[in-house]
Amino acid sequence: MSFKAAERGAIAPFIVMDVMRAAAAREAQGADIIHLEVGQPSGQAPSGVREAAARAVGAEPLGYTLALGRDSLREAIARHYRQAYGRSVAPERICVTTGSSAGFLLAFLAAFAPGDRVAVAAPGYPAYRNILQALGVDCVLVPVGPDSRWQITAQVLARIEGKLDGVVVASPSNPTGSMLSAAEVAELAAWCESNGVRLISDEIYHGITYGRAAATVAGMATSPHAVVINSFSKYYAMTGWRLGWMVLPEDLARSVECLAQNLYISPPTLSQVAAEAVFDCLDELEARVAAYRANRDILLNALPEAGFDRLAPSDGAFYLYADVSERTEDSREFCARMLAETGVACTPGVDFDPLEGRRTLRFSYAGSAEHMAEAAKRLKAWKT
Amino acid sequence: MSFKAAERGAIAPFIVMDVMRAAAAREAQGADIIHLEVGQPSGQAPSGVREAAARAVGAEPLGYTLALGRDSLREAIARHYRQAYGRSVAPERICVTTGSSAGFLLAFLAAFAPGDRVAVAAPGYPAYRNILQALGVDCVLVPVGPDSRWQITAQVLARIEGKLDGVVVASPSNPTGSMLSAAEVAELAAWCESNGVRLISDEIYHGITYGRAAATVAGMATSPHAVVINSFSKYYAMTGWRLGWMVLPEDLARSVECLAQNLYISPPTLSQVAAEAVFDCLDELEARVAAYRANRDILLNALPEAGFDRLAPSDGAFYLYADVSERTEDSREFCARMLAETGVACTPGVDFDPLEGRRTLRFSYAGSAEHMAEAAKRLKAWKT
Repeated sequence: MSFKAAERGAIAPFIVMDVMRAAAAREAQGADIIHLEVGQPSGQAPSGVREAAARAVGAEPLGYTLALGRDSLREAIARHYRQAYGRSVAPERICVTTGSSAGFLLAFLAAFAPGDRVAVAAPGYPAYRNILQALGVDCVLVPVGPDSRWQITAQVLARIEGKLDGVVVASPSNPTGSMLSAAEVAELAAWCESNGVRLISDEIYHGITYGRAAATVAGMATSPHAVVINSFSKYYAMTGWRLGWMVLPEDLARSVECLAQNLYISPPTLSQVAAEAVFDCLDELEARVAAYRANRDILLNALPEAGFDRLAPSDGAFYLYADVSERTEDSREFCARMLAETGVACTPGVDFDPLEGRRTLRFSYAGSAEHMAEAAKRLKAWKT
Repeated sequence: MSFKAAERGAIAPFIVMDVMRAAAAREAQGADIIHLEVGQPSGQAPSGVREAAARAVGAEPLGYTLALGRDSLREAIARHYRQAYGRSVAPERICVTTGSSAGFLLAFLAAFAPGDRVAVAAPGYPAYRNILQALGVDCVLVPVGPDSRWQITAQVLARIEGKLDGVVVASPSNPTGSMLSAAEVAELAAWCESNGVRLISDEIYHGITYGRAAATVAGMATSPHAVVINSFSKYYAMTGWRLGWMVLPEDLARSVECLAQNLYISPPTLSQVAAEAVFDCLDELEARVAAYRANRDILLNALPEAGFDRLAPSDGAFYLYADVSERTEDSREFCARMLAETGVACTPGVDFDPLEGRRTLRFSYAGSAEHMAEAAKRLKAWKT
C-alpha cells in the first residue's frame, strides 16, 4: 500500500546547513574554523534577561499564557515604539510570537489564500518563499540589485506585471544589510495601501544599523493594513529563546489570535518573562552594535584586498553580500573550497537567491573581532 | 482599496477562552473561582528541570539548535522509549518540536495535501480540525461514543465512506480521557498500514493513566508510516516551556526537517536543555499522577450526586467528560450559568464537538485536591 507525502512538504533545505555540517566535521578533526556563515549573535543574552529568567525559573509556575502573549510584555513593546520611534502603537495590536518565524506563518495564513501572489526580493530570506510555498501561495520573485539598493521600492513594485496580493520587505535586509530610507518606506507603504497590496514589513534587524536608524511601518497612519514582524533574536540577542512579535492591522487581529491559539497555544512563557527585562539592557545592546560596526570595518577594509570588491551596502544587520561572478559560477562549490582551503565558513548565495545566487555569497560578521581579523588574514592569503 | 483576508484564517476561537475571561472578570471583583476549565498541570515544572534551566541560563549561549533539536535530547527520548515501553526507536527518527502544536502542523503539512481527507474524532481536541482547516485539508468528523469507548478504532474507520488519507487518534483522549487497549492500537495501526491511511498518534497524555499503561505506536514494526506526537507539557508538567517531540516515519523525515528549518528554525533552546533533566524526575512526576488520581476519585464520587452521572471513562489524562443533555441543550449558556452561580469554571463541549457539544461539558481535574473538594461541594449544592 502506498502512502502519499504532500508535495508542499518538499521544500528546499537551507544549503548553509551543508556548510555547517562540513565545518563541524572539520572541527571534529581539529581544524580551526572561522564561522562567517552563522546568522545569529554570538555569546549570551543580556545579563538582565538572564537574571530575570533565573528568578522566574525558581518562582513562577510558567504555564501557558494568552495566545497573544503576556499583557505586560505587550505593553513593554508598545512603550518601545514610543521611545525608539516616537510612534503610538496600542498594546492590543501587538501579538507576541514564537520567534519571527511564527509571525511569518501567522501573517501569511491570515492574509493570503492559496494562489495569491506575493512579491519577495531575490536575494532575500529563504524562509519567506519556503513558507509561502508550503501554504500554496505563489511567490513572485523580484530581482533586486544596486539600482534599488537591493530593496523592493514602490517603483520596483509598480513595474511588476499581473495582480499582486502582498509583498514582503526587510530593511535592513538579510542577506545584503541594505536599507530603505524613511521616505522610501513611507512611499512603499502608501503605494501598497492604495493598490490593495498587503505589506509585510520584516523589521527583525532594526536596531542594528550603522548610519541612519531604520524606519518602522508600525503605527504609520497611512498604512492601516500593513503587518509588522519583529524579533528578540537579533538586536536583543535572545536567539534560542524563540520570541518575537507582530504589530497587527485591525482587519487581521482576530484571525491571527485564533490561528495562534490553535497553532501555538502560546509563546514560551519563560522567554516572555525574561524579554520584559531586555528593554532595560540598552547599554549592553548598543555595545554589541558597536562591536558589529568594528567587525564590519575590518571586513570592509580586508575583503576588497582579498578580491571580494563587489559588496552590497551593509547599512545594517551583520552581513556583507558579495558578488563573486568574476571568480565562480557555482557559489556552493566555491564556499566548500573556501572552507577546505582557508577554514573560513560562509553561506553560498543560492540560499537567498534562486536566480543569481550561484554568483554570490554572504559573510556574517556577528562573531568576535578576533575572528574577523583572522578571517581577513586567511582570505587575503587565499589563492583561488 | 479593499484588502483580502484569507478565508482559512477565519477559524473558530476556543470557546473556553470566553469562560476564562468571564472567570478572570469575576475574580477581579473578588469572587473565589474554582478552575476546572484549564487543561494544564498546575504548579511548577519538576525541580530537576528548573535547576537545569537555572544552570544553563548562567552558563550557555542558548543560540539556535539544529531544527530537529539537540542530539543529546533526541537520545534521551530514544532511551525513554526503551525504558518506558521496551521499544527501540532510533534517535534519528526523533524530531524535537515547539510543543505538540508544532508536531501537528509539521505532520499535517508534510503528510496531507489540500483536499485530502483526514478523520478526526468528535469529541476531540479542537486544534486538530482547526489546523487542518487552515491548511485546506478536509476534516472528516467521526462521531464517537460509548460503543467504541469514545475512540476511533479500526472498526469505526472501516465504516467511514469515501477515500481516507489520514486519521488522528489520541489515547488517552482529550476531552474524554478514554483509552484504546494495546490490542486496539495494534489493530488500528495495522488497518491504517494496509489501507494506505496515514496514522497520526497523539500520545501527549501518555504517563497519566489510572489502570493499564497507554500503548505507543512508536517503534511498532507493523506501522512504518505512522507519525507519533508527544509533549513535555502534560505528564512532564513543562507546559509553558513549549516543547514536544515527534517520532517520524522514514518517508516524511526529510520534509519535516526542511519544514521545521523554515517554520521554526529550532525549538526553544533553554527548554531543550532543561528537558533532558526531566527523565530523572520520575518520582516527582509519579506523585503528580497519584494526585490526579485522588482528584479523579473525588469528582467520580461527587459528580453523580451533583447530577452529572453520565461520564465517559476517564482512563487517563485529567478530564471528565459529561453528557448533560438532560439538563441543557446549550452547554455554553450552562457553563456560563454554572460559573455565575457556583464559581466553578468548566469547558462547554462545543469546543470539542461541533456535532453534539451543545449537550456536553468537560471538567479538568489537574488542579489541587482542595479545589476538587470545594468544586464537588458547590456543584452538589447547586440547584439548576
